[in-house]
Amino acid sequence: MSSTASDVSIQIKNLARKARAASIRMAGLSSATKNELLERMATALEQQRTTLQEQNDLDVRAARANNLAPAMIDRLILTDERIGAMAQGLREVAALPDPVGEVTGMWRRPNGIQVGRMRIPLGVIGIIFESRPNVTADAAGLCLKSGNAIILRGGSEAIHSNTAIGNILKAELEHMGLPAAALQVVGTTDRSAVNTLLECEEDIDLIIPRGGEGLIRFVSETSRIPVIKHYKGVCHTYVDTDADEEMASRICINAKVQRPGVCNAMETLLIHKDIADTFVPRIAMDMRQHGVELRGCSISCNLASGIKPATPEDWDAEYLDLILAVKVVEDMDEAIAHIEKHGSLHTEVIVTNSYANSQEFMRRVNSSVTMVNASSRFSDGSQFGLGAEIGISTSKLHSFGPMGLEDLTTRKFIVFGAGQVRA
Amino acid sequence: MSSTASDVSIQIKNLARKARAASIRMAGLSSATKNELLERMATALEQQRTTLQEQNDLDVRAARANNLAPAMIDRLILTDERIGAMAQGLREVAALPDPVGEVTGMWRRPNGIQVGRMRIPLGVIGIIFESRPNVTADAAGLCLKSGNAIILRGGSEAIHSNTAIGNILKAELEHMGLPAAALQVVGTTDRSAVNTLLECEEDIDLIIPRGGEGLIRFVSETSRIPVIKHYKGVCHTYVDTDADEEMASRICINAKVQRPGVCNAMETLLIHKDIADTFVPRIAMDMRQHGVELRGCSISCNLASGIKPATPEDWDAEYLDLILAVKVVEDMDEAIAHIEKHGSLHTEVIVTNSYANSQEFMRRVNSSVTMVNASSRFSDGSQFGLGAEIGISTSKLHSFGPMGLEDLTTRKFIVFGAGQVRA
Repeated sequence: MSSTASDVSIQIKNLARKARAASIRMAGLSSATKNELLERMATALEQQRTTLQEQNDLDVRAARANNLAPAMIDRLILTDERIGAMAQGLREVAALPDPVGEVTGMWRRPNGIQVGRMRIPLGVIGIIFESRPNVTADAAGLCLKSGNAIILRGGSEAIHSNTAIGNILKAELEHMGLPAAALQVVGTTDRSAVNTLLECEEDIDLIIPRGGEGLIRFVSETSRIPVIKHYKGVCHTYVDTDADEEMASRICINAKVQRPGVCNAMETLLIHKDIADTFVPRIAMDMRQHGVELRGCSISCNLASGIKPATPEDWDAEYLDLILAVKVVEDMDEAIAHIEKHGSLHTEVIVTNSYANSQEFMRRVNSSVTMVNASSRFSDGSQFGLGAEIGISTSKLHSFGPMGLEDLTTRKFIVFGAGQVRA
Repeated sequence: MSSTASDVSIQIKNLARKARAASIRMAGLSSATKNELLERMATALEQQRTTLQEQNDLDVRAARANNLAPAMIDRLILTDERIGAMAQGLREVAALPDPVGEVTGMWRRPNGIQVGRMRIPLGVIGIIFESRPNVTADAAGLCLKSGNAIILRGGSEAIHSNTAIGNILKAELEHMGLPAAALQVVGTTDRSAVNTLLECEEDIDLIIPRGGEGLIRFVSETSRIPVIKHYKGVCHTYVDTDADEEMASRICINAKVQRPGVCNAMETLLIHKDIADTFVPRIAMDMRQHGVELRGCSISCNLASGIKPATPEDWDAEYLDLILAVKVVEDMDEAIAHIEKHGSLHTEVIVTNSYANSQEFMRRVNSSVTMVNASSRFSDGSQFGLGAEIGISTSKLHSFGPMGLEDLTTRKFIVFGAGQVRA
């Protein structure tokens, strides 16, 4: 190991140890203190907009010099509006109920001891992310509000912006006499820093990677710390024989075109064979009017013009684009089998008027979000009423589906006795 | 890689894939079917006791030939009583409420969609354990009742016993027309089998290691699959200045001597300095009467005879024996700081009559179990009313503290709409 790599390793381990110490203090803060902190952070971001934009400009100019794709550069720029949105995000999190201290249940045992479960912070949360610097403020707000310390490691292309946001926010911790180490932005762009972070299992309780599939796979294969992740969203809508065709079309169009580039957009449409004669031509026309390219099974290709034959890869594709795979199925069993084989455990929808089928679909499909008669685009923490979203999990441990403040906590057991001992 | 190792690898991957397929069927079973399965398994164990004991005898004889420690050999033997206890355990799990399908909350959003959370099985659970063959039946009962498939890998010294129990239980799956792959005992004692198991992240959802610290560290450092674990239990009792001394003594004696070899026994006693003059001599005498060796700080050594001076290692020791570390502290702050530094996040107890101190201890100590005025020996799934226990977690993700059936499930979001789309 080069001396630089070992310097980075020492620096990261120190940072994690300080975060652990700070987390003990943060866990004990009152909601009022945490809310004041977030409000002050929001104001500071607005007031120090010029400083922030100067630092952001260093990243943007470097990105242009390095010929980054225009879309990447656009995501990097901290406009007045985006800084305003970060501040607003912090204020919204301040306004959310504090999950810490909630007793989710308490019961009395035959010997008289009372046993309950109380929500407490996880401790130290590491966020490893790419591009958009607003993640620094958004993730900090959620982790601090839930009483945790946070370590942020963003992409090297946003290092000046992330560091500047971190410094502005840390100053507010210090102004309030709170430990600045509760919020740390990794200041080095050395790649070995991530490897070291992922080894600090004594000092970091959870890693959340946010970015492309490559980053997420690397983090989850390397980390000794628990990771909550989702790779992709291959969301299905199944239109049942009993569906209201007008409703089905409305839901499908919304799920595909309202924002095609996100993980809760529909990628595959499954249609019951008994409704296919009328619904395939109808949805083909409706989708075409919205500029959607259809790729279908042989039956659907025969039922409407302009549908391209699908290849086997289409059934697994996350297009994130105005493209839709379409398949006619024998029955709901085939639809569910298709979802089990090709789905990503993200979000699946049935459109039906059959009570029995709605119940069966809900019982049998075990994706993180299962819906009846609604657009998959609702699969989102804000839409579900969780407040802001720290991410979405398609692995089942700890969290499954959109994650809000509650997912940044765990529950300890609490016991109130009167001197009982075990027989 | 030798051809044998690669054969083992193929065999284990096949086994995991079959478990995944079986888990889909198991997730949809009714509680009545699962209960009938467990009842039949219990009866089968009793009826095939002789066959089972023949296989067990092969393990016991090999263990004697290999000069295993007598305690290890004792744990291996399947007496009539232990087989009866396995059967009884299965019947008790059958009688527990089924967590699958429980809707833990449901709310209506402004646009009229109803959003809720429903418990579903985790999927496939891998148990890696040492010695006691009863784990095969106990873990199978809990995992199957919660709608999961289970893969068991026990120690090589119990291979015949574990395989025999697995075969008896699997036969009952087959008799009921259920997939036998829902319960699989790894039949090879090749060590590479564990490594391959820990790589099957597509087909296994959770790994629970049960055994010594070495096994648990190996599993958690090697696994790509989420692991729920606890290393050790260094449990503290803090006797506050306001404690009732008679109650404090009773709780301390119970916590130390009622069963010293288990993880929820007390290992360190912290005593407020204002009560030390009377309580240290009293507890020293009470402990001595129960055969407990005391190792104390200099203050406690001065307050009572027969206390050995503690070394720094004593404050981190999990004795699992009739030995107790004793420290006099300035105040509750020092007690909590000591617990933060030396504790294992297992179980901590305060004995006090101060309302304020009981509240503060409960709020500030974030071990998986925090108690007021009760023996740490209550820190247990059965004592807490969770039914049987699959393990205990001292890491905070997913589960923290004793784990019952509910911890073998996750929650998906369910959404009932009436045609809503996102604006």
